[in-house]
Amino acid sequence: MLVNCVAYEEGRKLADIPVEAISDYLMRPKCFVWVALRDASNEELDLMQEEFGLHDLAVEDARNGHQRPKVEEYEGALFVVMHTIELDALDQFRVGEVSVFAGKNFVLSVRNRSQQGLLGVRQRTEREPHLLRHGSGFVLYAIMDAVVDRYFPIIDALDSEFESIEAQIFAAGAARDNIRMLYDLKQRIAVLKHAAAPLMEATAKLWSGRVPAVCESNREYLRDVYDHLVRINAGLDNLRETIGTAIQVNLSMVTIEESETTKRLAAWAGIFAVATAFAGIWGMNFEFMPELKWHFGYPAALLVITAACVVLYWRFKRSGWL
Amino acid sequence: MLVNCVAYEEGRKLADIPVEAISDYLMRPKCFVWVALRDASNEELDLMQEEFGLHDLAVEDARNGHQRPKVEEYEGALFVVMHTIELDALDQFRVGEVSVFAGKNFVLSVRNRSQQGLLGVRQRTEREPHLLRHGSGFVLYAIMDAVVDRYFPIIDALDSEFESIEAQIFAAGAARDNIRMLYDLKQRIAVLKHAAAPLMEATAKLWSGRVPAVCESNREYLRDVYDHLVRINAGLDNLRETIGTAIQVNLSMVTIEESETTKRLAAWAGIFAVATAFAGIWGMNFEFMPELKWHFGYPAALLVITAACVVLYWRFKRSGWL
Amino acid sequence: MLVNCVAYEEGRKLADIPVEAISDYLMRPKCFVWVALRDASNEELDLMQEEFGLHDLAVEDARNGHQRPKVEEYEGALFVVMHTIELDALDQFRVGEVSVFAGKNFVLSVRNRSQQGLLGVRQRTEREPHLLRHGSGFVLYAIMDAVVDRYFPIIDALDSEFESIEAQIFAAGAARDNIRMLYDLKQRIAVLKHAAAPLMEATAKLWSGRVPAVCESNREYLRDVYDHLVRINAGLDNLRETIGTAIQVNLSMVTIEESETTKRLAAWAGIFAVATAFAGIWGMNFEFMPELKWHFGYPAALLVITAACVVLYWRFKRSGWL
Amino acid sequence: MLVNCVAYEEGRKLADIPVEAISDYLMRPKCFVWVALRDASNEELDLMQEEFGLHDLAVEDARNGHQRPKVEEYEGALFVVMHTIELDALDQFRVGEVSVFAGKNFVLSVRNRSQQGLLGVRQRTEREPHLLRHGSGFVLYAIMDAVVDRYFPIIDALDSEFESIEAQIFAAGAARDNIRMLYDLKQRIAVLKHAAAPLMEATAKLWSGRVPAVCESNREYLRDVYDHLVRINAGLDNLRETIGTAIQVNLSMVTIEESETTKRLAAWAGIFAVATAFAGIWGMNFEFMPELKWHFGYPAALLVITAACVVLYWRFKRSGWL
Amino acid sequence: MLVNCVAYEEGRKLADIPVEAISDYLMRPKCFVWVALRDASNEELDLMQEEFGLHDLAVEDARNGHQRPKVEEYEGALFVVMHTIELDALDQFRVGEVSVFAGKNFVLSVRNRSQQGLLGVRQRTEREPHLLRHGSGFVLYAIMDAVVDRYFPIIDALDSEFESIEAQIFAAGAARDNIRMLYDLKQRIAVLKHAAAPLMEATAKLWSGRVPAVCESNREYLRDVYDHLVRINAGLDNLRETIGTAIQVNLSMVTIEESETTKRLAAWAGIFAVATAFAGIWGMNFEFMPELKWHFGYPAALLVITAACVVLYWRFKRSGWL
Repeated sequence: MLVNCVAYEEGRKLADIPVEAISDYLMRPKCFVWVALRDASNEELDLMQEEFGLHDLAVEDARNGHQRPKVEEYEGALFVVMHTIELDALDQFRVGEVSVFAGKNFVLSVRNRSQQGLLGVRQRTEREPHLLRHGSGFVLYAIMDAVVDRYFPIIDALDSEFESIEAQIFAAGAARDNIRMLYDLKQRIAVLKHAAAPLMEATAKLWSGRVPAVCESNREYLRDVYDHLVRINAGLDNLRETIGTAIQVNLSMVTIEESETTKRLAAWAGIFAVATAFAGIWGMNFEFMPELKWHFGYPAALLVITAACVVLYWRFKRSGWL
Repeated sequence: MLVNCVAYEEGRKLADIPVEAISDYLMRPKCFVWVALRDASNEELDLMQEEFGLHDLAVEDARNGHQRPKVEEYEGALFVVMHTIELDALDQFRVGEVSVFAGKNFVLSVRNRSQQGLLGVRQRTEREPHLLRHGSGFVLYAIMDAVVDRYFPIIDALDSEFESIEAQIFAAGAARDNIRMLYDLKQRIAVLKHAAAPLMEATAKLWSGRVPAVCESNREYLRDVYDHLVRINAGLDNLRETIGTAIQVNLSMVTIEESETTKRLAAWAGIFAVATAFAGIWGMNFEFMPELKWHFGYPAALLVITAACVVLYWRFKRSGWL
Repeated sequence: MLVNCVAYEEGRKLADIPVEAISDYLMRPKCFVWVALRDASNEELDLMQEEFGLHDLAVEDARNGHQRPKVEEYEGALFVVMHTIELDALDQFRVGEVSVFAGKNFVLSVRNRSQQGLLGVRQRTEREPHLLRHGSGFVLYAIMDAVVDRYFPIIDALDSEFESIEAQIFAAGAARDNIRMLYDLKQRIAVLKHAAAPLMEATAKLWSGRVPAVCESNREYLRDVYDHLVRINAGLDNLRETIGTAIQVNLSMVTIEESETTKRLAAWAGIFAVATAFAGIWGMNFEFMPELKWHFGYPAALLVITAACVVLYWRFKRSGWL
Repeated sequence: MLVNCVAYEEGRKLADIPVEAISDYLMRPKCFVWVALRDASNEELDLMQEEFGLHDLAVEDARNGHQRPKVEEYEGALFVVMHTIELDALDQFRVGEVSVFAGKNFVLSVRNRSQQGLLGVRQRTEREPHLLRHGSGFVLYAIMDAVVDRYFPIIDALDSEFESIEAQIFAAGAARDNIRMLYDLKQRIAVLKHAAAPLMEATAKLWSGRVPAVCESNREYLRDVYDHLVRINAGLDNLRETIGTAIQVNLSMVTIEESETTKRLAAWAGIFAVATAFAGIWGMNFEFMPELKWHFGYPAALLVITAACVVLYWRFKRSGWL
Repeated sequence: MLVNCVAYEEGRKLADIPVEAISDYLMRPKCFVWVALRDASNEELDLMQEEFGLHDLAVEDARNGHQRPKVEEYEGALFVVMHTIELDALDQFRVGEVSVFAGKNFVLSVRNRSQQGLLGVRQRTEREPHLLRHGSGFVLYAIMDAVVDRYFPIIDALDSEFESIEAQIFAAGAARDNIRMLYDLKQRIAVLKHAAAPLMEATAKLWSGRVPAVCESNREYLRDVYDHLVRINAGLDNLRETIGTAIQVNLSMVTIEESETTKRLAAWAGIFAVATAFAGIWGMNFEFMPELKWHFGYPAALLVITAACVVLYWRFKRSGWL
């Protein structure tokens, strides 16, 4: 679906143009065309390939989707694939894709399986003609910046989710839920990591070393995007490592708790075993058991049993078993 | 076994030719020969070595099989070894090998221990003469692309197998089977990893930096193969790491379950120990135990015992042990 | 908030100057201006941007804060972001930020969320005119050196905290607290690591390979800062790894302790079970149990029971269970 | 001990020559000398140093042995150290050493603490004069190839040993032996790894990048040796990682088994506790316990006890505890 | 404290000279001065700085000590910091420091907190004038070689300590001590690692790539030092990894042992529970329990109880629980 198709000159919008007119505008010097597609059909992509002279393999990738984030340089155009991550109604991650073709005098963005539009990007860039004057490279930067900036609130959400789990780590009895939640969180971090890590590596090629011509005048802006990605990746790595430790600590807590239960079990079993053994002995049916005839034998026996139990209890208490 | 031997000119098939005629066709400019062997005998390989002037070491590798996937540059020919992975009737992995020799004007593929042929590759490439015109380099690409594309359904199978295990991770009592299955899965991932990881590294040399002459005009296609291998490897690494976490989580679940059982055991042991201790005391044979003579002594005793047990039960319930 | 704004010439302080006069001084050769801001307002930053001609993106970063430590080279100025770490009243870490812009003839430092000032740095450098003569590069070094040197006492504190925990690792019963403290410590190390590790990588670019012009004459000083950062990072990595081992060892101790408790429980359970079984047998109500009639049956029974218990006790003792 | 000392010309053996004549043959163009020593004495090494002009440090290394595998380039000679691994009568590893000095027109091999000779290497190379014509570089290759090829059967032995352990991993009760054997195996893999990994790194320098003159004409052969070492290392890494997982899985199995035992213990303890509690209650000595007088009181009691036990048994069975 | 101060010419000792005369000798061509200090005072260091023209930062490092091992190139002098490790009376590690300044025609070594002198180094080098002729670079090598060679006996000690622990790993009951000793050993390895690893990296810069002028003629000797450090580091890494495995295995042994104890506990608990249950039943006070009247009721009861216990015992034995 065509979202819009606009021609720009000297940093200012010329006009919304029909798709067929693209090639005319491409011939005008200092003019560039910015087309946005959404869940593009095969026909639309074929048309774009023809208008802009895109490479078969890149168009194939944009068509199929499910690519790893990457930056590829083809003759005449840079091809950038990014993942978008959105939360659906059930707080589950939905992974979409934005593919961008950026040539000397055109930018074509194809958005797939993603709710949030890039319209805001166009509006913001149009408000800054002194920057838009840099041409298609600046538009590429603006789109990348927008996609990457949307990762931050997701990381913040993951961070605060972790903090709420962390508060439970040392609490007794919550281990099962903690581990389940930490496992879920780790899986979600992996999704974000797979969006951010390859994109970081790929973005490095846009500002350091030999830089594609399209990006030449925007190196510092693209370094800024790269810098954001470095921060995102470092944050994710940190979170992931911390989760690993948290799982380990949680398991330790379970083991420690179990160890304490075992001690307690041992202690109470010991106390009752003593009581039961005494009662058993005085329950034996021997004829000549003199204490059984004593008048205060029974209270004395209760006293002995209670005393033995109290002594044991006190010793276990002292040694920390109870 | 010779599968076929065909000469091409300007991207079009000239003719099926006998092996002896190869050297004649090799002399014609703009002409190249594509030979496919299957489980080749020593004689066939010797013949091919002579016809195409292949290097001893490369022919030796193709003869012996069981190589790591690799790309080697010999004078006059590129030598590529790839693994094929197929599922046999019992869903076990069968690892085969495809060795390809690609020279300026010839391609020789040798397929070993593999059911699936490469015939489809030949048919598809013959249908695209404008690409086949690129010569032996394009044929090499087509074969590599075909082998690598066959890894994807296997990864998908492993992925969905993992998902079915994952659904069981937090279920009680399934730990033994889960771990066995995760272990099996990890072994199978290792097989695929050993096919894909060295091939990825080797393929990088075919499109970036100094590129062998044969691949010069197909760089972008070979980058596409490389890109697929990067995706496969990233997917495998991710799966492998997730399995590691899953084994750890599973073990945690067993420990937690055991901890709960221990608590329960301790609780019930406590309750019964109280009952038994009381019964034992009233079972003692002292002569002067006044309560034994009371008319409602027995019901009172039962009441006391029951009350003690209920109190304990309630306390254990409250503290989460039962 | 403006802390101070001073012009220097030939390594000596010329005068405290008003902000508006900055551009005049910037034009004088051999003269440089050093401005210090603290929790700068937007207006102050805008003014500075205008006076020094700073890049939009760098000013944006200084304004927003919460950057990763980094060194970025813009045309006309180097932009350095460092983290400061301070202990608040409750011994918690407070992370602040120092951003430094260093151009050919100016240094602008912006300090955010940090109590400790950089005033001492200015005083020390003013006392060494032969070094200050090196210009803005030396001031940049002095600020970086001051920030990095403040990491050392924090590492020392963490080190001695670890040592006090370590002394408890092999003590019985302290596992829960140990692991909680080790976990806390690990989190705090991560905070320091995130301050030091990226800064180390970034500082490397200031003295090795192609060095920004501002730093050219101070390479050896900046290498010294780098060397400090290498030491800090190595210390942190070591501490982190040791904590990992300590957690593992602590968990081992819990498991070993539990194992010993289980053995003891088993041993005492066995001893009492024997006593109870004997008492139970002689408590049976069979009519013809000759030993019950014996005069010394009861003492004999007590003897038998005691003997059995002693034998068991001795055997358990010998096998290390008690 | 001198094994042999032979002069070659144009790929053919000239003659067995006495050590003293070496320098004469070294002067003849197109001629090279190949000396083999075994557990060389100090005098022999001194003599060789003089004849071939070897560097002090290299001779020192050959004399002392116990080096890491390495390749060092000295002026006039390449110095290669390799480990040999043999199985002694008790299937233990014996690590020996082969040091090779390879100059423009000589090869000196020194074999220490190793049973298997390199005589076969000499015979095989003498049978291929067209290759031996390449000179000392080819001899170096032949020796390296022979040493490396002897690693393969050892890896195969380790592999099949692992497979026989792996078959026991999920078997109950074998954990102690499994872990002991896996630990032993891991130690043995480390020995082989220390032979193969440094040699791989060192061999890379003999065929890629700037290559020592001696190896120039044998690059492809040395790449073949390198390729073997890559395979060996990959195999060892894989085995090592799998053993790690196997130890973890084995431990999981022990934990799971223990968890099941605990459940069973809890279940049977519960059943008997119920029986004992009932028996204890009816064993109390209250005077007014009407059921004790009933004619069918006893069978009824037995029935109640049995019924309670059966109900418990059935519930435990259903919940998987028994 | 000045240890000695000697001038050399053409590889031969000229004379012990007073510190004040150093600058005179430095002016003579082909002459170099070698000064050794021990726990140098501030004044001594200031004097040396003046005599040799050392850089502020390097002298500062030598003064403060507690540096990481490193090699730094200053204009006019190389600055090398190494750690010495000695065993004190209690077999504890004592870490000292040797700082070496090596210029074109001087060497200054400063030894701190170390008992073992470097006098032996001086004596050995003076005995080899043909090597000492290489000048200050050779002296630097000799000192480095001496320091590094002293690491070997310490590694050997750690190795044999590990072996004595390893022999206990599979022994029952020793787990607590094993883990404590393994933890201690790991800490000690870390100390040695921190001495050797940074030194290895730093030493690489003295022989490969662009080499400081002082070391130019001793590249092969410094490579030898580097080679020793590589061996030391590889040995330490190996030991560290093995200790990790040993701790894991030890913990496994504890778990397995506990598992066996639990089974045994369960088995004996079962056997006694059966005996007690039977005794309890025949201890009930029902009036009509015909077997109680039988003449051989009691022996029969004992037989039944014994038989039940024997059957249970036999079954547990068979299933490996006892």
